Amino acid sequence: MTILNEARSIVITGFMGTGKSTIAHLVAEALGRPLVDTDELIMQRAGMSIADIFAHQGEPAFRALEAGVCAEFAAQTELVIATGGGMLVSPGNRALMLRTAIVVCLTAQPETIEARLTGSVGRPLAGNWRALYDARRPAYASLPYHVATDNRPPEVAAAAVLDLIRGVLPVESPEGRYDIVIRRGLLRSLKAEAVPFDLNDRVAVVTNTAVAPLFGEVVAGQLPAAALLTIPDGEQYKTVATVADLYSQMVRAGLDRSATVLALGGGVVGDTAGFAAATYMRGVRLVQAPTTLLAMVDSSVGGKVGVDLPEGKNLAGAFKQPAWVLIDPDALRTLPMREIRCGMAEVIKHGLIADSGLLELAHALPWAEQGGPDQRPSTGLVDGIAGLLARAVQVKIDVVQRDPFEHRERMHLNLGHTFGHAIEQVTGYAWPHGEAVGMGLIAAALLSERLGLCGPELVAEVRAATNLVGLPQSLGPLDIGAIHAAMAADKKQHAGKLRFVLLEAVGRPLIVDDVPAEDVMAVLAALQ
Amino acid sequence: MTILNEARSIVITGFMGTGKSTIAHLVAEALGRPLVDTDELIMQRAGMSIADIFAHQGEPAFRALEAGVCAEFAAQTELVIATGGGMLVSPGNRALMLRTAIVVCLTAQPETIEARLTGSVGRPLAGNWRALYDARRPAYASLPYHVATDNRPPEVAAAAVLDLIRGVLPVESPEGRYDIVIRRGLLRSLKAEAVPFDLNDRVAVVTNTAVAPLFGEVVAGQLPAAALLTIPDGEQYKTVATVADLYSQMVRAGLDRSATVLALGGGVVGDTAGFAAATYMRGVRLVQAPTTLLAMVDSSVGGKVGVDLPEGKNLAGAFKQPAWVLIDPDALRTLPMREIRCGMAEVIKHGLIADSGLLELAHALPWAEQGGPDQRPSTGLVDGIAGLLARAVQVKIDVVQRDPFEHRERMHLNLGHTFGHAIEQVTGYAWPHGEAVGMGLIAAALLSERLGLCGPELVAEVRAATNLVGLPQSLGPLDIGAIHAAMAADKKQHAGKLRFVLLEAVGRPLIVDDVPAEDVMAVLAALQ
Repeated sequence: MTILNEARSIVITGFMGTGKSTIAHLVAEALGRPLVDTDELIMQRAGMSIADIFAHQGEPAFRALEAGVCAEFAAQTELVIATGGGMLVSPGNRALMLRTAIVVCLTAQPETIEARLTGSVGRPLAGNWRALYDARRPAYASLPYHVATDNRPPEVAAAAVLDLIRGVLPVESPEGRYDIVIRRGLLRSLKAEAVPFDLNDRVAVVTNTAVAPLFGEVVAGQLPAAALLTIPDGEQYKTVATVADLYSQMVRAGLDRSATVLALGGGVVGDTAGFAAATYMRGVRLVQAPTTLLAMVDSSVGGKVGVDLPEGKNLAGAFKQPAWVLIDPDALRTLPMREIRCGMAEVIKHGLIADSGLLELAHALPWAEQGGPDQRPSTGLVDGIAGLLARAVQVKIDVVQRDPFEHRERMHLNLGHTFGHAIEQVTGYAWPHGEAVGMGLIAAALLSERLGLCGPELVAEVRAATNLVGLPQSLGPLDIGAIHAAMAADKKQHAGKLRFVLLEAVGRPLIVDDVPAEDVMAVLAALQ
Repeated sequence: MTILNEARSIVITGFMGTGKSTIAHLVAEALGRPLVDTDELIMQRAGMSIADIFAHQGEPAFRALEAGVCAEFAAQTELVIATGGGMLVSPGNRALMLRTAIVVCLTAQPETIEARLTGSVGRPLAGNWRALYDARRPAYASLPYHVATDNRPPEVAAAAVLDLIRGVLPVESPEGRYDIVIRRGLLRSLKAEAVPFDLNDRVAVVTNTAVAPLFGEVVAGQLPAAALLTIPDGEQYKTVATVADLYSQMVRAGLDRSATVLALGGGVVGDTAGFAAATYMRGVRLVQAPTTLLAMVDSSVGGKVGVDLPEGKNLAGAFKQPAWVLIDPDALRTLPMREIRCGMAEVIKHGLIADSGLLELAHALPWAEQGGPDQRPSTGLVDGIAGLLARAVQVKIDVVQRDPFEHRERMHLNLGHTFGHAIEQVTGYAWPHGEAVGMGLIAAALLSERLGLCGPELVAEVRAATNLVGLPQSLGPLDIGAIHAAMAADKKQHAGKLRFVLLEAVGRPLIVDDVPAEDVMAVLAALQ
């Protein structure tokens, strides 16, 4: 079953006295969606109160009614559903709802519940609530998203729920659904999230020597059974040898088949640790926690993992869907501007492929106030990028959901990359990936214009966007003959055909085979 | 859809004049199954001859009737189906039948067809048969199994079909169905099979330095676009480094994503080349062609591929289902008796797990007439093993179909392996895998008896079987304390529990956790 992510129902559950009905009502109102209150519905249908159902028919009869209602509404979309407190304690009901909906569990401390239940009537189980609270705690803890309601007016708790679900982007993959969670401060508050993210078992936090002091110890320190494993920093270490070293570190850390690898860092860490996770003991669980903009919007999503060979990039690898992708936009604060600009190349690419609004959002960011390549971004820029991240990631989600194994449409994500890879290669990776891709986007637009696919306005738009974020506008002294030769060699990987992703307009990419060499050379010459 | 392999329908197809109806009739009779002749059925249902349907309603109307009949019978089992000559030319019909049935295409040279068609009446397309023959040839060529009918009476051709299908063992896997084909002379007659096995595109025949002169050049020489890649011979080369070397060889051989890896050799070749195939360019097609008895009955089936790490065996790997498994029993002729005996350990294991008849078959083989460990097996022994191979492989198929990712039942295949791995390790692999497993089977039986799961007759049966085929009956001077320690270390891989596969009877394996150390030590002591 594939459900459009924006259509998923929101389920509000939790123990009695956590404010489910009130908060669900506010959430439904804010989203403009119908509200289903399962306890209310059962009472209506039974023609009596829940206390009466318990008294006259017994709890099993009530649970049977409840399971029916659960199955009925798990099959529907675009609802807000407030459940009875016990509904998702049943593993069957829980599995049904988790498959289709975003399930948020409201929480409250025992004192809060005690105070709220005092004087309540008509709750059949309220008498022995404390025993029930303890019994149900593991079931609630296994739910993915929690919002605390203690000392918060319902409006504030509802706003926290809305904020949370806006950052949850579910992805359907061939191996089932997983969620991308975008949430500021996530890496530093992982302890609070550790139970819902199910990271209490053995976890290998894999990072590199640059990220380890920034986030590695912070993240590993919050998880009860984590080992911090590091690899060297740099694309030149994205190798089979690094994977072999990781295997050994994983054995020494006592990781068995039930372990999880949490890849914490940029694209190299995600790809390398991801490949180790895909193949260690024939595959262990993988959580991606990207800390660069490029990894957040591109490499952490979609399941491609792998390493480079001496003969070329990404030639060994696997498709390994993560169990979670955890994105903390606050990690952007730690990046130099050069890396921010590189990441924006992929954001612009996503805008060009499928979402012109992303380009407008990128234009509205405070680029003028930023410093040099080694400076950190301004707070305004971090806030701005944090605000467009979900939209940029959604473009990639939409594409990989439709074509997980890159049979056709997923190739659109290679817009700018045929030129880009060749530039990286010819410069011996002195041009970082993002800068090369940015230049590749301009080249793809020029080639599209030259082949009569689009007019000059599109070229101007790509130039304006890449220029604004500070990406290079010219190849300068690079040897364009060598770039062309590198492309031809690269393309041997696709059954001998020269293939480009080009643009007819923003939002209209297409794949073109057999582009004449002289057109490619003319575009490269125009960029010198 | 899961179909019991013995229940699959047999589809007989081919061009007009290849003898489909006659031969299908003989096959159905031999198998005691109902025969469906699709042309006959269409005539009956339409109340007119096919020539009349063509004349009055046109060919498209006939093809629509035919597609309906195809869908109807593709959904049924235990039939023999003779199709009209054009039915499986339609890709849709072909896909339907290939999913559920074993499809055999009868062939004949044009001269044979010409002679058979002379004077035939009532065949609407017979007039321009030569153009039709050429047009349909690619569709027939894409079918998996071909039997030539030139210069053969129908009884002989039917016997060839029966012989073929007895050697075809279909396997349902999470990635779809694949077939294991057991056929004498297969490796040397691959050219005749190359089209049906779809090995005309780029193929890397991966083998080792020992197998290359025996079969490597023979196999690669028959395939139009094959590269012969070799790795060193020996378990010590089942490493990440060998996989990295294979990747480089594959790049240099120009293999792209559409290539196939054909792993030709024993378990080390299959596991190592299989892992390279699973990860080269995120996965290319894999064909397993095992040449040792051990690989034929065990490692080539079920999708487990991988390599050893310095820290332990098979710690890195993947589940990679092959597209085909090609077993040529004649390869057994090239093995020294020591390897034959080792392979028999796995055959006996399969008998103990699920098929007591296999043990009887193993007993009936001419063991007394065999020479020393470096001698070749007698022709009688090769014939005998060739006769039981399908049955031994079927045990593994049944288990891996039910539990492809080793969640529970597949662990039964580890009978004898907990002891066996420890013996291999303590002897520094001086004891080969099969001898260690054979000893492990005896140890598992002794432990089962000691724990009261079975009586002494089962121990006697295991001893008799392993002794007969020439496997060791005692540990001799090995350090049993070290063996015990190695088992304890190994078992840390399963969440800290000591776990054994034991036997209540032949055909009744069970998994037992937390076996007391003193019982394990007592068994080891009894084997010294």
